[in-house]
Amino acid sequence: MRMSQLFLRTLRDDPADAEVPSHKLLVRAGYVRRVAPGIYSWLPLGLKVLAKVEEIVREEMEAIGSQEVRFPALLPREPYEATNRWTEYGPNLFRLHDRRGNDMLLGPTHEEMFALLVKDLYGSYKDLPLSLYQIQTKYRDEARPRAGILRGREFVMKDSYSFDVTDEGLERSYQAHREAYVRIFDRLGLDYVVVQADSGAMGGSASEEFLAVAEIGEDTFVRSPGGYAANVEAVVTVAPDPQPYDGLPAAHAEQTPDTPTIDTLVAHLNERFPREDRPWTGADTLKNVLVVLRHPDGSREALAIGVPGDREVDTKRLETQVAPADVEPFTEEDFAAHPALKKGYIGPGVLGEESETGIRYLVDPRVVDGTRWVTGANVAGSHVIDLVAGRDFTADGTIEAAEVRAGDPAPDGSGPLELARGIEMGHIFQLGRKYAEALDLKVLDENGKLVTVTMGSYGVGISRAVAAVVESSHDELGIVWPRELAPFDVHVVVAGKQPELFEAADRLVAELEAAGLDVLYDDRPKVSPGVKFKDAELLGMPTTVVVGKGLADGLLEVKDRASGTRRDVALADVITEVRGVCR
Amino acid sequence: MRMSQLFLRTLRDDPADAEVPSHKLLVRAGYVRRVAPGIYSWLPLGLKVLAKVEEIVREEMEAIGSQEVRFPALLPREPYEATNRWTEYGPNLFRLHDRRGNDMLLGPTHEEMFALLVKDLYGSYKDLPLSLYQIQTKYRDEARPRAGILRGREFVMKDSYSFDVTDEGLERSYQAHREAYVRIFDRLGLDYVVVQADSGAMGGSASEEFLAVAEIGEDTFVRSPGGYAANVEAVVTVAPDPQPYDGLPAAHAEQTPDTPTIDTLVAHLNERFPREDRPWTGADTLKNVLVVLRHPDGSREALAIGVPGDREVDTKRLETQVAPADVEPFTEEDFAAHPALKKGYIGPGVLGEESETGIRYLVDPRVVDGTRWVTGANVAGSHVIDLVAGRDFTADGTIEAAEVRAGDPAPDGSGPLELARGIEMGHIFQLGRKYAEALDLKVLDENGKLVTVTMGSYGVGISRAVAAVVESSHDELGIVWPRELAPFDVHVVVAGKQPELFEAADRLVAELEAAGLDVLYDDRPKVSPGVKFKDAELLGMPTTVVVGKGLADGLLEVKDRASGTRRDVALADVITEVRGVCR
Repeated sequence: MRMSQLFLRTLRDDPADAEVPSHKLLVRAGYVRRVAPGIYSWLPLGLKVLAKVEEIVREEMEAIGSQEVRFPALLPREPYEATNRWTEYGPNLFRLHDRRGNDMLLGPTHEEMFALLVKDLYGSYKDLPLSLYQIQTKYRDEARPRAGILRGREFVMKDSYSFDVTDEGLERSYQAHREAYVRIFDRLGLDYVVVQADSGAMGGSASEEFLAVAEIGEDTFVRSPGGYAANVEAVVTVAPDPQPYDGLPAAHAEQTPDTPTIDTLVAHLNERFPREDRPWTGADTLKNVLVVLRHPDGSREALAIGVPGDREVDTKRLETQVAPADVEPFTEEDFAAHPALKKGYIGPGVLGEESETGIRYLVDPRVVDGTRWVTGANVAGSHVIDLVAGRDFTADGTIEAAEVRAGDPAPDGSGPLELARGIEMGHIFQLGRKYAEALDLKVLDENGKLVTVTMGSYGVGISRAVAAVVESSHDELGIVWPRELAPFDVHVVVAGKQPELFEAADRLVAELEAAGLDVLYDDRPKVSPGVKFKDAELLGMPTTVVVGKGLADGLLEVKDRASGTRRDVALADVITEVRGVCR
Repeated sequence: MRMSQLFLRTLRDDPADAEVPSHKLLVRAGYVRRVAPGIYSWLPLGLKVLAKVEEIVREEMEAIGSQEVRFPALLPREPYEATNRWTEYGPNLFRLHDRRGNDMLLGPTHEEMFALLVKDLYGSYKDLPLSLYQIQTKYRDEARPRAGILRGREFVMKDSYSFDVTDEGLERSYQAHREAYVRIFDRLGLDYVVVQADSGAMGGSASEEFLAVAEIGEDTFVRSPGGYAANVEAVVTVAPDPQPYDGLPAAHAEQTPDTPTIDTLVAHLNERFPREDRPWTGADTLKNVLVVLRHPDGSREALAIGVPGDREVDTKRLETQVAPADVEPFTEEDFAAHPALKKGYIGPGVLGEESETGIRYLVDPRVVDGTRWVTGANVAGSHVIDLVAGRDFTADGTIEAAEVRAGDPAPDGSGPLELARGIEMGHIFQLGRKYAEALDLKVLDENGKLVTVTMGSYGVGISRAVAAVVESSHDELGIVWPRELAPFDVHVVVAGKQPELFEAADRLVAELEAAGLDVLYDDRPKVSPGVKFKDAELLGMPTTVVVGKGLADGLLEVKDRASGTRRDVALADVITEVRGVCR
């Protein structure tokens, strides 16, 4: 491809709305272009990379015997109504009416449609196991589309679905997908981790995420020296064993004026009520946080969450626990509706479904029977000391909503956790029978009895992968494509204006193409070598061949984009040389 | 691919909603499956055919230097507002709101988006000519989706756009596309015609359609012995020259009781007012037809159309002329609002913008000055004879709305027209500067002056092509794929239950695959040979190899799906034989 013909305009400046490197570079290098918030066009170079990612995914899906189909993106409401996702998806779902007034949607994922297709055509255990996949455009009306194609509202995804009769069958299908995903992300050249995940709104029993390790990632995950890894939303708190109440002092309310925060409270305790064994810390206090859940049907519900005072409530962990409800602030109006709630001094006495406020009260798993807490006395300027869980108060249940911190113990005993960030590249779910039951997907078993099918659901973000690769492989000059994804194998640059340079380059390009290589040829006659080199670095092909001054001595320069190394190679050897590095 | 593993269920019965052969066969053979009206899924076999059509189109677009990009399907309203298509598309456009209440649409075609992209990145005549294309999912909310994937509401299309500075440049880009389209439809093996088309709602100066000749086609076209071909909507009526009024008799109203139809009127004229030279015919009468135009803004406008009495108003020709308005019936209420209109006896005297009704009056081009007509006298039971156009009445203009009939003269004098039907497979437009002006797409010319770019727009129905090929290539047993589109090159059928048949077939399939052929292998152990042969004929691979009784004598049967011929071939020769026919 001649750059004089290529539809491309590289940009010197970062787009105004871009914050992350992949967004800046993919736009500046002319791979993608913004159409609307979270909605992008693929330009010629970008589309070539996208097609290469698709091909890798397709090969690995075929390798595990999954068969490709393609569903429409525009779908009828009814199947999503049957599984309740029409409602549960809330404002993330693009909904519309057709000309006859029928409700339709733009598909976010296709569990329902695949289940109905299999129900439609298959009816016996002999037809299973079955695995189907599609590479298709998906839609989610993200509240905060960001980072270019990393989190878009229209995006390309590979989604696949497995169908089995038995739980063991589902486990096998799941493991086959897991191994295919490992091969896919290895081939994409990504530094990734496989972490335990919360199944969240999808339901189902087990799920794992493939996260590309990246500081700009939206997902926080933990890992331990012993190999535990989980999305922070899925981390299970290590709770102490319940303890006997015997010999614990009785609870006693104390004046603690002007201590509406944990820090002021701890200082006050240490000054006025010092412990003998050690100073008070935030971990001795029980902080009660109020929020409002907005359910998919629009209704509001107040919720109180009790966490150790040294930890914040982690919004994403909380949202995962309460999904499909959204979390909203507890407002001044809400406080006004519950005069028993004294801001800054709220204690368990006014919380719980059986209490005077009737507000559901869930506590951190560390609040086990026999643990002693300092908490609000429900009187302004007053706290209770030695309030014992199980003896003096009982919550309505526990919730995994407190923040996870570096150094917290891994739930499997494999050591202290470290925290890092990642980009969600893939997600695999053992859905189980939830969708099959909702849609009545049954087959006859060996005894002629109808049994409900068990499903798995598996996704790879195809367009997102393009951005994730750039996040993990770029420098201050531009993109550094891994060979398997680069839009072209070689970039040939003519550095100079002499006709003999162009003639030599024309021949070189023809020979490289005859050798089966895909060549980007910078033949622009009026562009300076400096600008051409800058463009080559920005665009990021793995190998550049410069036809320049050295030609007089029969030499071409071969540059490696990743290492930055450059070597002079004799004209006669250059094809062999370039073919060698491009294997 | 083993049929025991393939996700496929062939159906014995036609789907209830299917009327045309391609719809019946593609569903019965498991290529596509209905999701909602006009919305289909592609099953594994269908998707393979779709991909092959895409590849042919891609190769021919690359061959003319067009570059592939991909736009989103979900688009913002504003660009379509600028060209007025947001309104003009009427109910055919899928419209929706995003979570912030912004108006969005699902793209029917992308003229606006491509123009804005080029405006965004290019600015000089040196950047042009440019040709860009995409293969992408499109949406139109058809009033009557029909015939399966032949006219769907979600469909795959190749759309491309050319950008030139000069009219001559546009002409060259248009011709390059035209030649690429000829190669594409030749390779698809379609019997097609290239016809002049009406540019309709797209605007622009010239356009042609590629129609696959098919009785079930929705487009009627004409062709003459001398090579004229046009979509019936684009046919220009051959009108006589205006004639002098001198010596024509004066118009005279006559009693014509009970003659509300042309037939009764002509019979009455011949009985009561016989002509000397020849009998009266319907062609001597002027029939005035009333309709209502529904404009995109929702307003209604009455329109009267005068056509020779022996011709009907052709709804599609009329709709093309009045687009983007829709045509609706003139109702009893409309008649009641205009008491001057006497049903069955309406004449020019009460029609026209200057008349008492104020109804716009357009006549057939044959109604030239000096022609004599019998028409309604605006009194029940009365007609006027010898009413002369130009002398006794003048219309507000002419309209090409009368039906075109076999035997009508071609407008270029190339002989009498014949009529046939076709499926619109491709459409090429010289858009000119309409879109570029609306969106301010300008470049600097050689003199540094801003000039408006001129555009072409070119489409191929990719998913529709799959159905069109089946329409043109099937028999009573099933589909007959052309080699270039068949999902598999060879279909190997084991006819019998003996293990040695399966062993021989396993070896054969491995050898065929090693020879580079894509093989569908019917290895189903419990299915009878008769059912397997029926399935093979339904699915339509071009060549079938049967491993059956002949194996004992070292013979396999090779069948050709198109011709139905079958020959016994020695085991040792079968690879060479099959490779030979698959070239």
